[in-house]
Amino acid sequence: MTDQFSSKLLEEAVHQISSLPGVGKKSALRLVLHLLNRSEEDVERFANSFIRLKKEVKFCRCCHNISDSDICEICSDKSRNPKIICVVQDLKDVMSIEATQQFRGLYHVLGGVISPIDGIGPNDLTIESLVQRVHNEPIDEVVLALSTTMEGDTTAYYIYRRLENLGINITTLARGVATGDELHYADEVTLGRSIVERRPYSTGANF
Amino acid sequence: MTDQFSSKLLEEAVHQISSLPGVGKKSALRLVLHLLNRSEEDVERFANSFIRLKKEVKFCRCCHNISDSDICEICSDKSRNPKIICVVQDLKDVMSIEATQQFRGLYHVLGGVISPIDGIGPNDLTIESLVQRVHNEPIDEVVLALSTTMEGDTTAYYIYRRLENLGINITTLARGVATGDELHYADEVTLGRSIVERRPYSTGANF
Repeated sequence: MTDQFSSKLLEEAVHQISSLPGVGKKSALRLVLHLLNRSEEDVERFANSFIRLKKEVKFCRCCHNISDSDICEICSDKSRNPKIICVVQDLKDVMSIEATQQFRGLYHVLGGVISPIDGIGPNDLTIESLVQRVHNEPIDEVVLALSTTMEGDTTAYYIYRRLENLGINITTLARGVATGDELHYADEVTLGRSIVERRPYSTGANF
Repeated sequence: MTDQFSSKLLEEAVHQISSLPGVGKKSALRLVLHLLNRSEEDVERFANSFIRLKKEVKFCRCCHNISDSDICEICSDKSRNPKIICVVQDLKDVMSIEATQQFRGLYHVLGGVISPIDGIGPNDLTIESLVQRVHNEPIDEVVLALSTTMEGDTTAYYIYRRLENLGINITTLARGVATGDELHYADEVTLGRSIVERRPYSTGANF
């Protein structure tokens, strides 16, 4: 199929939607034609949801999770245990762990993992903020719930070294998560068990 | 993964994008998080492209193709032969045929095919407008370039019966398009040959 669109407006909409990762030109055209069949009100609601999200969304000052307010719902939930912090790579991992219903502490969202090949170092993540949290609050335990990839392991090791002298328990997920997997692809049962069976962090046997 | 989002704004954006056909919840979240990493300007350009398309797009008064003006670029192209009309199901088929560079006439976009099971009858399509075009203009030939599905064949037959006494050539695509295929999935070479080798419409041998 050529790029000869009969309408510049159509071409621009297809171009925009095919700029999303994993969406090809043919799929994009199909999606745009589907949108075009909806009411104007529907299309506005569709489009404005992205503008509102981008303009109004906040990141929790405490755990850095995406939130509608300064402090997210999880951090302000009094029924949760604020002395346990679960460190995760991103929002998707928070959602995966919440879905297991096995964890009632708080989170700390790093915003990524250390990955020199992508130019991501410790200072690009919220690690300093995590260290401050552990310093300033009465934390009992930090659970390192990172993906079992090289980058996840490196990040876990770096955080372990930053926290090891602060007199808290540093734990990691029980093996059960398949090695080499991205965390948010694990099934709920496996991920739930690995939260329940978390064990003391050690630099040798873990990796 | 549960539906427990930490942000209603995020939830709404994910909901909107997963309302598109073939986009699941996990993909939708991935796409929205990708959008969230872009600049506010980029997100606005993304979102506004759909609103502008819906509000400003027109349909060509002559061939009913999507267009930015009252008469589309193809219909107003003086270098094309206005005496040959190629009847297609929708815009995607116009793009497929244009990509073969084998057709220099005009088009007529039906907006669908006759499909009783979907409640689509002849009056839901632009067939009456096609009959008017053939009546009012000096047309030599109508090419029925419809998908070789039951619905496409039914529609071709219906149009043939409407036009057969008007003294014009009614042709159909040369076999070469595999039977049972949607037209816009055909490769360019096959589709190009089938335009070049189009032949007189006959109700028997064609189907």
